[in-house]
Amino acid sequence: MSIKNLSYKQTEITGGFWRDRQEINKNATIYAVRDRFKETGRFDAFKCDWEEGKPKKPHFFWDSDVAKWMESVAYITYHGRNAELEKEVDDLVDLIEKNQDENGYFNIYFTVVAPEDRFTVRDAHELYCAGHLIEAAVAYYEATGKDKFLNLMKKYADYIEKVFKIEESAEFLTPGHEEIELALVKLYRCTGEKRYLELSKFFIDQRGARPDKEELMIYNQSHMPVRQQRTAEGHSVRACYLYSCMADIAAEYDDAELKTALDSIFENIVNKRMYITAGIGSSHHGEAFTIDYDLPNPNAYAETCAAISLAMFAGRMNAVSPHGRYGDIVERVLYNGFLSGLSLDGRSFFYENPLEIVRADRTRNVSWGAKEHFPLTRRQAVFDCSCCPPNITRFIASIADYICTLDEDKNILYLNQYMESSSGFTLGGAEVEISQKTDYPWDGRIEIAVKGMKNKTLALRIPAWSDKYEITGAEAKLTNGYAYIDVASDDFSVTLQLDISPFFIESNPKVNANAGRVALQAGPIVYCLEEVDNGPNLRDITISTEPDFKTVWNDELGVAAIEAKAFRTKPCEELYKKATFEKVEITAKFIPYFAFANRDDCDMLVWTRLQ
Amino acid sequence: MSIKNLSYKQTEITGGFWRDRQEINKNATIYAVRDRFKETGRFDAFKCDWEEGKPKKPHFFWDSDVAKWMESVAYITYHGRNAELEKEVDDLVDLIEKNQDENGYFNIYFTVVAPEDRFTVRDAHELYCAGHLIEAAVAYYEATGKDKFLNLMKKYADYIEKVFKIEESAEFLTPGHEEIELALVKLYRCTGEKRYLELSKFFIDQRGARPDKEELMIYNQSHMPVRQQRTAEGHSVRACYLYSCMADIAAEYDDAELKTALDSIFENIVNKRMYITAGIGSSHHGEAFTIDYDLPNPNAYAETCAAISLAMFAGRMNAVSPHGRYGDIVERVLYNGFLSGLSLDGRSFFYENPLEIVRADRTRNVSWGAKEHFPLTRRQAVFDCSCCPPNITRFIASIADYICTLDEDKNILYLNQYMESSSGFTLGGAEVEISQKTDYPWDGRIEIAVKGMKNKTLALRIPAWSDKYEITGAEAKLTNGYAYIDVASDDFSVTLQLDISPFFIESNPKVNANAGRVALQAGPIVYCLEEVDNGPNLRDITISTEPDFKTVWNDELGVAAIEAKAFRTKPCEELYKKATFEKVEITAKFIPYFAFANRDDCDMLVWTRLQ
Repeated sequence: MSIKNLSYKQTEITGGFWRDRQEINKNATIYAVRDRFKETGRFDAFKCDWEEGKPKKPHFFWDSDVAKWMESVAYITYHGRNAELEKEVDDLVDLIEKNQDENGYFNIYFTVVAPEDRFTVRDAHELYCAGHLIEAAVAYYEATGKDKFLNLMKKYADYIEKVFKIEESAEFLTPGHEEIELALVKLYRCTGEKRYLELSKFFIDQRGARPDKEELMIYNQSHMPVRQQRTAEGHSVRACYLYSCMADIAAEYDDAELKTALDSIFENIVNKRMYITAGIGSSHHGEAFTIDYDLPNPNAYAETCAAISLAMFAGRMNAVSPHGRYGDIVERVLYNGFLSGLSLDGRSFFYENPLEIVRADRTRNVSWGAKEHFPLTRRQAVFDCSCCPPNITRFIASIADYICTLDEDKNILYLNQYMESSSGFTLGGAEVEISQKTDYPWDGRIEIAVKGMKNKTLALRIPAWSDKYEITGAEAKLTNGYAYIDVASDDFSVTLQLDISPFFIESNPKVNANAGRVALQAGPIVYCLEEVDNGPNLRDITISTEPDFKTVWNDELGVAAIEAKAFRTKPCEELYKKATFEKVEITAKFIPYFAFANRDDCDMLVWTRLQ
Repeated sequence: MSIKNLSYKQTEITGGFWRDRQEINKNATIYAVRDRFKETGRFDAFKCDWEEGKPKKPHFFWDSDVAKWMESVAYITYHGRNAELEKEVDDLVDLIEKNQDENGYFNIYFTVVAPEDRFTVRDAHELYCAGHLIEAAVAYYEATGKDKFLNLMKKYADYIEKVFKIEESAEFLTPGHEEIELALVKLYRCTGEKRYLELSKFFIDQRGARPDKEELMIYNQSHMPVRQQRTAEGHSVRACYLYSCMADIAAEYDDAELKTALDSIFENIVNKRMYITAGIGSSHHGEAFTIDYDLPNPNAYAETCAAISLAMFAGRMNAVSPHGRYGDIVERVLYNGFLSGLSLDGRSFFYENPLEIVRADRTRNVSWGAKEHFPLTRRQAVFDCSCCPPNITRFIASIADYICTLDEDKNILYLNQYMESSSGFTLGGAEVEISQKTDYPWDGRIEIAVKGMKNKTLALRIPAWSDKYEITGAEAKLTNGYAYIDVASDDFSVTLQLDISPFFIESNPKVNANAGRVALQAGPIVYCLEEVDNGPNLRDITISTEPDFKTVWNDELGVAAIEAKAFRTKPCEELYKKATFEKVEITAKFIPYFAFANRDDCDMLVWTRLQ
């Protein structure tokens, strides 16, 4: 395995767009999530003293909620220790130690609510919780050097290996919600103990292959052995957690069958089943992938966690075989369907990320008590099923994971994401440093300085959306979405200029929901119209084919807004009339999709009509 | 009351479009409905011998299903006796006689299933069934001269008067489903007994006015006294049956408050809450009106009975105060949202009449067991709740009701609908005959011959859609949607030429669902695209703004199809790409909306995109 993604540990975000967001994450989000989790009893649950009749009965996924929060603390701590947060984690770890079984087992729900049901209910998130605890333990060890949590989780992982792999004594064979698979890879990479990797591969190999042990179902991707799968199916977060681990295993074992499956699945997602915002899982039924080209906008599910899981999957694919398309998708997630999940102040969250809000539609059947499902229009501080908030905070804290990929055989440094940052690592025996200076994505200019890479190759991802780009300071050859540059000296610098001017995107005509509509994008950012800027009835707006775009900085939101020449239908009294197509010229005001719903509760639209 | 609509008894459809449909109705539909009703036990139910444990338990609306069928037999019989069908009705009447209570009460369900619950459950359709039986009895008497059924129903009406008006001894005051109100007006007009009219007015007056007697609810329009109502609310069939009777009462009593309410409600329906097909009640929840401009296409409810009820309402408004807009709406019902309810062979029926079918949308959540409601894509022979099929057959059989309105004070004959027909009546003491010769709606030429109308006025409705029209043979003055012609002789003829060339309709921009879309109409007929003619993914089709329409007779369907220059998006592999708007020219093939779903099960679209 000569190709690997550089981790957040080797890269610090030093400024710009993501530094701002990491600051908000560090100063607001991590505390907001903690406070909500404390209020809802999720922290106290680790005391394992809940009894029937008491309030705040632990849910079987609560361990994972807090584990992701602990993992985020680790990432935040890595670049600057924080005694208050560490104390919180240490206290939780002490509780885990206290309440862990002799054999290593730890799970709150199956200790205080249903201890007799351990490892009997496949979909009860036991191994999912274990996976998140393992990820947290690894991160906390790497951030702080404290190994107590890691050792507790190694013991748990050993027990899981015994029960599931050695003895096969559990009542199911593979997790109902994937997660532990990729956690075990991290545990292996942290500890060097290969049996954790092998246990991960065991779960991958068994999935969908053992009708004697468990129900083979599409919901959790066990409808067939994973190597035979070619399309993205079922619950979308489960799916991309699985595909992420399949990518890890494919890279670790150079597994051709897995690669074939992954290539096909990735293709299926990004060319058939993904919103322009990189949201996936279009239906709230099963929070699932549905069918090709089925991407309805007002009732898009597009869970924030699913967007994160797609970035995880795409990012890991670079370690299988680097290609610009993976960074393109990670980028589409980062600036759109992921970031929309978080309010600008970092304190509230979307679980679902619709691409259109028409509030009136929600009132139509209210008189009849109809329970139609629509995404919320306002972000919430916490949810009953609150997987997204801690996932958001850990993702932002570790976002530097997605910047660089190294090919150590070929001495290539792939630069996947453009963020003001500084990385240090060894490549081909040399100490290398790379720094980016940029105001991306508000500006297309990225200044890159590299030290210690003489005679090695720097590959800069050229986003598929950037028709024009300019590289100053070096010759470059574009292949597979990267501009390859031979680095001529150990103190080398190059400037990449991407074209971030606004442009329209059209969907494949098979996407029924977007027929006759375009999305506006500038750089990696997808834009939307909000009622607060454009008045009601956004669907009536048609953008001019000569839109005369003006980019205008919006101080309130801290984003680049875009104004475009557009039209509205001339108002009339009649319900129907002979078509006259009388229009009134207006200025349509777009803001980045990720910034929607940060002002008044109002309608919103991504896919607009074009004149 | 000097204005009245001429009834089917005074007009015979002699040829053309509606004669063809009356033939199918007489030869196929009436038997198809009978056979399905026999199979499902609806006829035998009149024996009132069902007992617990037996199959085919009568439903509380079964009386009304069969009553509408009997009413249709009467209309069919009027212009040509039919011994077989009369025998069926006579047998049913004998059963009614046998099973009617001493006091006049008759209802199958409340005789064999819940006899102790008579007149206790407002929404159990007792008075609704009574109303349909009364309508059938009146029609059967008028068609055959046999008065047994009429007398049985008079006795029942007398009993209802006693229980509801004189003694107020029922547990509710007004019907949960309106119908008896308009039936009582018919009974009055047939018998001349004014107390039936007064009982009808009593129900109208009491509705929504007596919270001491019943729950005031929007679902059945009892949320406020009817004279205060200004918008169309609740279950749409209930609503328009109510408005129909309010129109009857407004005309009979010259009731200004009712007229004010009716004008506003009519306006609300046709300018805010009606599909272009004249379908109403856009939601399957409550089969109800929702909110202004809420007219979704794929899940339009638009029940066939609701379309019929709108024609009933609009038609009756002409007797309140003649205006072309009423005939316009009746016509829009006739050729579109009503007629779509019936297959071309007359043997199967739509309950719901969607304006778009996208079959793929229905498969998206099937894996998760989601129960999303979508209209059927194929007509059915019978339904559990089978109100529409017998309503269709009685409506077609009595369609001549909608042709003429007479103002006997002003000696005006209003010609509302253009159908090849012949009518005879007296006006201002003179015997008048009027005949129409036309191939309408396939041809815009209507030749009208009038005898006995010298110095009287003939008013021809000029449809709002006909920008151009030509009247040959007389001078005319256009007012309120009618061309008024002074008839110069007792043997007078005039030719009206309407412009039936195809045109596009646009919606009010507030109709979100139709933003950027147009409907194609030619004459009174709304057109649609079907997948069987145009291939899949109909939403991708954009019609050219220079469509170069060609009208082509389609022998298979027996309709005028329309071809138009159009475009499809050039197929591509990518899900998203920079918009290039590459189009491929095609010919879009439209058929009348009413004829959809008569070939393969396929997608359908009314509101298409325009280039």
